[in-house]
Amino acid sequence: MSRKEVLERLERWAGGIAKTIVELKEPVLEIPSRTLSNTIWDEKNKILRLGPEKLKRRFLDVKESRRFMQTMLMLKLIVEAIRADVYPTIRDLYYNGKHTIIYKDFLGREHKENTWDEQAESNGVIEDIEVAANILREEMGVSADVKGKVVGPIVVRSQGYELDASKFGETALSLPVNVDALEIVKVEASYVLVIEKDAIFQRLVREKFWSQENAILITAKGMPDRATRRFVRRLNEEYKLPVYVLTDGDPYGIYIYSVYKSGSIKLSYESERLATPRAKFLGVAPLDIERYKIPDQFVIRATERDIKRAQELLKYPWFQNEIWKKELDYFLKTKKKVEIEALSAHGLKYLHDYIKDKIRNNKFID
Amino acid sequence: MSRKEVLERLERWAGGIAKTIVELKEPVLEIPSRTLSNTIWDEKNKILRLGPEKLKRRFLDVKESRRFMQTMLMLKLIVEAIRADVYPTIRDLYYNGKHTIIYKDFLGREHKENTWDEQAESNGVIEDIEVAANILREEMGVSADVKGKVVGPIVVRSQGYELDASKFGETALSLPVNVDALEIVKVEASYVLVIEKDAIFQRLVREKFWSQENAILITAKGMPDRATRRFVRRLNEEYKLPVYVLTDGDPYGIYIYSVYKSGSIKLSYESERLATPRAKFLGVAPLDIERYKIPDQFVIRATERDIKRAQELLKYPWFQNEIWKKELDYFLKTKKKVEIEALSAHGLKYLHDYIKDKIRNNKFID
Repeated sequence: MSRKEVLERLERWAGGIAKTIVELKEPVLEIPSRTLSNTIWDEKNKILRLGPEKLKRRFLDVKESRRFMQTMLMLKLIVEAIRADVYPTIRDLYYNGKHTIIYKDFLGREHKENTWDEQAESNGVIEDIEVAANILREEMGVSADVKGKVVGPIVVRSQGYELDASKFGETALSLPVNVDALEIVKVEASYVLVIEKDAIFQRLVREKFWSQENAILITAKGMPDRATRRFVRRLNEEYKLPVYVLTDGDPYGIYIYSVYKSGSIKLSYESERLATPRAKFLGVAPLDIERYKIPDQFVIRATERDIKRAQELLKYPWFQNEIWKKELDYFLKTKKKVEIEALSAHGLKYLHDYIKDKIRNNKFID
Repeated sequence: MSRKEVLERLERWAGGIAKTIVELKEPVLEIPSRTLSNTIWDEKNKILRLGPEKLKRRFLDVKESRRFMQTMLMLKLIVEAIRADVYPTIRDLYYNGKHTIIYKDFLGREHKENTWDEQAESNGVIEDIEVAANILREEMGVSADVKGKVVGPIVVRSQGYELDASKFGETALSLPVNVDALEIVKVEASYVLVIEKDAIFQRLVREKFWSQENAILITAKGMPDRATRRFVRRLNEEYKLPVYVLTDGDPYGIYIYSVYKSGSIKLSYESERLATPRAKFLGVAPLDIERYKIPDQFVIRATERDIKRAQELLKYPWFQNEIWKKELDYFLKTKKKVEIEALSAHGLKYLHDYIKDKIRNNKFID
């Protein structure tokens, strides 16, 4: 969607509300409910979706008029930003929209009320607008942190400039906020390798692993941001590239994989466009400690937090299969975790062999 | 320095030690001491340096033989990595070098000793080798996280590939681990703007601020990594570009500026090559709350940690001047801090005016 199309859709929405008011009818916003109870696990597509529940936000309902006005205010700020060609962050929008409204009630008493108090409030309104308009905030021109970097056999185009990620030497291409505005010109890769750790990404870039493997390497340095998740999703969905995720061998690593694959249960409304349900877990899997004979002195004892996280992971719909149950049970039984770098105990280039073995011999986990 | 030259220098060093042993003399390593007492504030160049103190690491001294052997082991790992053309991380080196030595003492009793136990130990040895050989670890082929991204009128070359950071659209160029291997082909910028917050960097990229200002924009998303610091230093030193640092208006923001400018006192041996002593602080300065009339409701109350950090900053040699004293005293008195986004209270494009006002009218702090 171009910036102009986004603007038109938002203006059409706001225009409809204005029309209602002019016709002296009560304006009501219909917004898909972002509650847990309205989160549905779509077994066929292996994705979290928002259910059909919608909440009605009525202007003339005392309990809802504040939130109604907040939604209108934020919509105005976003539309104004697009018209002025600026790209505010969610925090800019919070500050720009925060002010105190002074009004008198029917007894003539003066009251003061802030448009919003905390950023959590204005963020929630942005999320409402996203799901109601079905446009990602990034497409609406809202800026955010971007962590993702890419190298490999892929050519993209951004604002007319062509960028060939196979010609970056030891540098990398940093993803833009709005990945949907990135045109993918050419992809000749065999697969996508998503790497949790930035330093491991740097290693594999410097060792030209991607060109030996004809793979696209991506890192978001730990927990992925929305832009990186959207980019990985696009590569899988539009170009049918297999996606493998390489993390440390602990529940946090598996959780990072889970975010790429399915997103978070709390933010299910994002998953429909950001998740990559077909992403595979390459490792390090808990049982790899035995499979790849990681010496005992390189094994780290799990913390209480690791154990709690593993127990949570076991409840996720997308981990409901025998293989994951076996892996997580092994972890909970042995309380052993390992870093990806522990593979270097077998030699500084063993990491290459490990990745190739996992992919060539289908040793990854779905 | 090319990879070959690095290898030669390390081999020469190791060769000298081997020769001593062959001649049946005691091998001794001379390593600049990285202690606080050997850290000197060079007032003229405004930089922290290591003093002349050197420590001697004797193989035949029971207290030092362990560290002597650790240094030799790490040197061997690094040399082997260069020869094998791999680029291990410091953690890879820790795992690769960790093993248990079993030996018998003169009474025939068996003993076990690990080459190193914690990563802190092996990291310390890498630092010793850096200062002793006077080569940054990145140049020795050790990999690490890289946070820095760049856009603007600068062309660089990495492994033969030319990258023009003015032709990246909404994406950015991600810095490599070893910034010294990056050839700077052409720079036509008026100044360098270092931005603490990634989301603000993204905004300014999307709003084409850099092309209006003919500026190079850089972010390292908070606390800078070594690669970003080295790159900023090179732009200032080799191309005489003014460097301005834009952060939140709190002691943490000022601390980030301080790291770019002078480095950390504990890691003074890095500063000689990573610090940019001429970097200026653009803001947000504590007194900007008054200067730019930030409304009270956008001001955040400082925490105990902020206050403690401000008191520490006041002791740093590079903050010993009237202007900084006034700013930090104002902060300590009012306990007020602001985020950079608070400027958006004056309009979504006010940030542009703020930056231009600071630079055009010399309102930055040295």
